[in-house]
Parts: sequence; structure tokens; C-alpha cells
Amino acid sequence: MIETPPLPKMPEVNSPEARPSDVQTGLRAYQEQIRPVLREAIPDREPRRHLYDVIAEQLSRSGKGVRPALCIATCRALGGPGEHAVPSAAAIELLHNAFLVHDDIEDGSELRRDRPTVHRRCGVPLAINTGDAMNALSLSMLKKNLPLLGPELSWRILAEFDHTLIETLEGQAMELGWIRDNNCDTTEEDYLLMVLKKTCWYSFIHPCRVGAMAARRDDVDPAAFDRFGYYLGTAFQIQDDVLNLVGDRSKYGKEIGGDILEGKRTLLLAHLFKTCSPDDKRRLRAFFAKPRSERIEREAAFVMRLLRDCGSLDYGRAVASQFAAAARDEFERAYAGALPSPDLDFLRSLVDYMVTRQA
Amino acid sequence: MIETPPLPKMPEVNSPEARPSDVQTGLRAYQEQIRPVLREAIPDREPRRHLYDVIAEQLSRSGKGVRPALCIATCRALGGPGEHAVPSAAAIELLHNAFLVHDDIEDGSELRRDRPTVHRRCGVPLAINTGDAMNALSLSMLKKNLPLLGPELSWRILAEFDHTLIETLEGQAMELGWIRDNNCDTTEEDYLLMVLKKTCWYSFIHPCRVGAMAARRDDVDPAAFDRFGYYLGTAFQIQDDVLNLVGDRSKYGKEIGGDILEGKRTLLLAHLFKTCSPDDKRRLRAFFAKPRSERIEREAAFVMRLLRDCGSLDYGRAVASQFAAAARDEFERAYAGALPSPDLDFLRSLVDYMVTRQA
Repeated sequence: MIETPPLPKMPEVNSPEARPSDVQTGLRAYQEQIRPVLREAIPDREPRRHLYDVIAEQLSRSGKGVRPALCIATCRALGGPGEHAVPSAAAIELLHNAFLVHDDIEDGSELRRDRPTVHRRCGVPLAINTGDAMNALSLSMLKKNLPLLGPELSWRILAEFDHTLIETLEGQAMELGWIRDNNCDTTEEDYLLMVLKKTCWYSFIHPCRVGAMAARRDDVDPAAFDRFGYYLGTAFQIQDDVLNLVGDRSKYGKEIGGDILEGKRTLLLAHLFKTCSPDDKRRLRAFFAKPRSERIEREAAFVMRLLRDCGSLDYGRAVASQFAAAARDEFERAYAGALPSPDLDFLRSLVDYMVTRQA
Repeated sequence: MIETPPLPKMPEVNSPEARPSDVQTGLRAYQEQIRPVLREAIPDREPRRHLYDVIAEQLSRSGKGVRPALCIATCRALGGPGEHAVPSAAAIELLHNAFLVHDDIEDGSELRRDRPTVHRRCGVPLAINTGDAMNALSLSMLKKNLPLLGPELSWRILAEFDHTLIETLEGQAMELGWIRDNNCDTTEEDYLLMVLKKTCWYSFIHPCRVGAMAARRDDVDPAAFDRFGYYLGTAFQIQDDVLNLVGDRSKYGKEIGGDILEGKRTLLLAHLFKTCSPDDKRRLRAFFAKPRSERIEREAAFVMRLLRDCGSLDYGRAVASQFAAAARDEFERAYAGALPSPDLDFLRSLVDYMVTRQA
């Protein structure tokens, strides 16, 4: 595991924003490469209604496909054939969707991609089982590496996948534990370690590492992408925490302010706990001590106001932009072994897009 | 996947009961072989309280260890070194425990091995995450096959493991779907297919298949154990369904009658739906239509009485003993390639023990 680097202190960078349409065209192109593989991965047999139809529905409303794009583009940018990264890219997309199904139960979320979450539609028991099955299908997917990459490299990629699973579940345990214990003293450092594990590893570090491995470049150490993935993932996550509070619901696809109702320990909240008055901290503690179902909108609005008044929202934005600048910088180091190519251009613009997105 | 064989019609067999003390001594001996491996599998790091301590606690109260014993004993009975089956045996024990954590949430079970279930102790969110992590650790365990069996055989075993996962989750989807839809027309055939998937595959078929693979006997087809595992697993499961109704709570470790409160579609219930009066069927349907929390003891006692009066309980016992006889018979065929050995004797007595157990 990589150590949590200290908060980077970077000058503000005025980078030109990526043209979103280019990035979206790119994302779609990479997604086309894994779509047939994903479709094939869903067994065409019973039980349909209580399992495979639910999975198909979840995958058909897939997100932007950032993870598979990172994986395939990294492989190609390093000179490997994109097809060699496709099973790993599809596996990570399946795993991501498996996580979402369980996360939504764990967080008590009602909406995902503008639709009721799986457990709202099917009930918690079938939703747990559906997430487990998606997890199993993602493992199946990695068997497709065998004819492409041989048994040894395929095992190394499987070991990466398994390590990623464990990092993610550790991060999730940290976050859920804080909520359960109503921990009101989580520090920024705690938060950053949690985000490294819960978000950065599977969404950013793993796709790049595995893309590089599929390119079979002996001179490229997969660890070269750890720091890049950490900076980018953290910028993305803090941005996401901010959007959860002030985003446009129609673009964001989840409840605005949902994190407050769920009691999520974000960087903004860590800042708020540190800076607010003892009285306000008592009120916050009492609010978060209640079960989610008893937390009401008016109280959430009070937390929201505090986050503004204490400068926590602005602080979050500033830290996100520091991490974004660091990610841009680190990108050039991590991909130093890549020759100029459309894939490299895509990756560079993806970095900008991820940290400047509005939804 | 094997097809569900028709209900076997066998003469009653008066086999001598296995002496339980021998079987239990044997089970303990095989368990000793995987205990250190399981202990090592739990990472010695944070997050402890919300993850690894919970897993350690769950594993320390482990059950009888039938699955790892089947796996190691099969490998040895076929002339392989037991050590070569240890990682697979430990992986299946971890997977079993992962399933239990999720099953207990899905079924709303309160007790497991005489203790409150994980979700009762830690809450549903952390329990889901803990089950996911145990699943990931079981996958990690299979990496230990590499130095023992080489990358190709290790991949074949991983593929078995993945197939087993999917069979189990399909069986679970069937069962949960029936409960959710309040299906009161499940047939015996439906039930047997569900049990093949949910119980037989991971608990009986998989451990034998993988034990045989670890023995590297080219002349033994892993499929030789499919029918044996199906007969044994089904005998075991129907026996378990009966014990859930009439067992001794102090030996059984779960709530007596819990299956009725959970709405489980057992063979007994399939028989009851078919044989009871239309009036009683209406009452049953109404009872099972209620959410679990509203099903009261008095109503469960009514279902229990019906199961007795309509002969469903006796029918279940009779079918279980038919499957048990078929399992004993099939055992000799499946292990025809094994030479006499203490491991083979253990396996034979395990079969008797599994189908005559009282808890």
C-alpha cells in the first residue's frame, strides 16, 4: 500500500479546461469496446427476474465509464493493444457496479443515476444477493485474460484485483465505522486515508496499474501510477462531496445534501468539526447521533449553513483544486514512458474533465 | 451444471450409524490443518474494530468444518498430498462464512451458532461490508495454490470456485424471490433445483471436485462427485429443514421454527401447499404475505400443526432418508478410484453422520 502523501502545497495552476465534448466522445469510444463484453457476461438463463434482469438493468444505466477508459487508454498509451486490457476494464466496471449496489444499501441511498436504487426496487435481501453476483461475474471476467495474457500475467492481474477489493472494503469499513460510532473527531488525515482506500484505489490507481500491466512494458512499474491515482481520485472525491451539497440535482443524479442526511464524514465536515464553536459542535453531534430516518431537512439545512459560514465549503473547493493541480503535474511523470498519441491526449483531457466537472 | 436427477426411489437401507465421536475426531483433525492458514488470512492491521476483529470473531466460532474436511479427505483418499488441498479447503471455509453473514441479513436471522448474528451486533451496513471482505479474503487464499499447483491448475480451481459462487447466488436468488413474491406454488422440483444450487454445490460438490483436482489424478473426472454431492447435500438440507422445526435449540444453535417466521420455501412447505385444504392454503398465503416482523408465534404454531397433520414433516423425513440412502450408494461409485485408507473411512462415516445428525 502506498503511504498517504502530505497535502500537496501547489501554486494555483491556470490550465485550460478540457472541452467536455471531446472527453465525452472519448469516453463513449472506450465504452463501446467493453459494452459487448459486459452484455455477454450476463448469463442468458434463470433466475432472470430476481437476478440477471436486475443486473442487466443496472448495467444498461451505466455511468460515464471512467474506469474502463482509464484502463484501456493507459494500455494503448504505453503501446499495448487495447484488446488486451478489455477483460480487466470490463471486470472493474462490473466491480464498480457491484460496489454501488451494496453502497446504496449501506448508505441508505434512495436514488442512483436518477432512478430508485436496487434495494428500493427489489428489497434489501435480493439487492445484497445481486451485488454479490455482480462481484462473482467480475471475477469470471478475469478468466478472459488467460488466452490473451497467459496464466502468469493473468494471475498477477487477479492479485491486483483482489488487493483492490480489500483496499476498497477497508476504506468502506472506516467510513461506515465513523458513521456508526458517530465519530465527530475525524481529521483530514483520516479522511484522506479513507478516500485513498475507498475511492482512489479501485477507481483510479487500479485501472491504470492494470492497463500498464496489460501493455507488458517491463520498463514501466505499475507503482508509477499510485501517486497520480491518489491525487486524481482525491480531487474527484472532494469535488463530489462539494457537488453533493451544491450540485444541480438534474445533472448530479443523486439527492442533493444526501451526504449530510447519511452522516458521511467528508473533508468539509472534518474542517467544520475543527472550526465551529463548541455549541455548534454539540448540535452537530446530536444531529448525527440520530438514526438517518429521523434527521430532517431543516436540520440538514442548518448543517449546510454552518458549512458555508465556517468556510468549510470554500476550503473543500480549495483543497480539491490543489489536488487537481497535483494530479495534472503527476500525470506527466506517471506517463513519461508514453509516446504522443490520441490515447495520451484523451487521458490528459480526462484529468482536467474529472476535476472540473459539474456532475 | 448437472441436471436435477429425478427423486431417487431406493429401498430403505439399514446402514449402521457412524459413531459420532469418530467423525468428530476426524473433523477436528482436518480442521487443525486449516486453522493456522485461516488465522494468517486475517490481516493484522486497521480497520480492526469495524472489520478484521469481526471476521476473526466469526471464524473463531466456526462450525463443524465439513467442507474443508471433505476437500482434504478427498484429495488424500485419491492419493494426493493433503497440503495441496489446504488453500482450497480454507478458501471454501472462508466463503461459507461470508455467505452466512449475508444470508443472516437476507433472512432476517437473529441467532447463529448461539450468538447474535453479525448484523445484530454491528448493524446491517458493516455486516454487508464484512461479508464482502470475507469473500475477498477467500479469493486471496486461492493465490496460495500457485506455488503448490502451478498457474494452470490454480486457474482451473479458481474457475471452479467462481462457478460455485454463481451457482450459490442463483440458488439464493430463487429462494429470496419466492419469499419476496409470496410464491405459494413452489413445487418439489423447484425446491430440489434451488437446493442443488444453494446448498449442494458449495458445501458438497465443490469441495469434492476441488479435492480431486488437487490430487492431480488424470483418471478421475471431477464430475464423478456431482451426483454424490447432490444426494448428500439434499439429504442434509431436508434434514436441516426438519431440525429447524423439531430440533433441540441447545444443539441446533438457531431459532427453532425460524424458517417458518422467515417464510422459507422448504420441501415440507411444498408438500403442505399441495396437500392442505383450500381454506388452509388461504390462511398460509395470508400468513406469509405479512412482513416477517408481523408474523407472530401463535400463527407459526398453526403452520407447524398443519405440517404435522398433513404428513409433511413425515414426508420430509422419508425423502431425506431416500436421499441419504442414495448418497451412501453413490459414494461407492464416486470414490471407486480410491484405495482403502483412513481418509476413505472418514468420508464414508461422514456421509452417515451428515444424514443422521441431530444438530
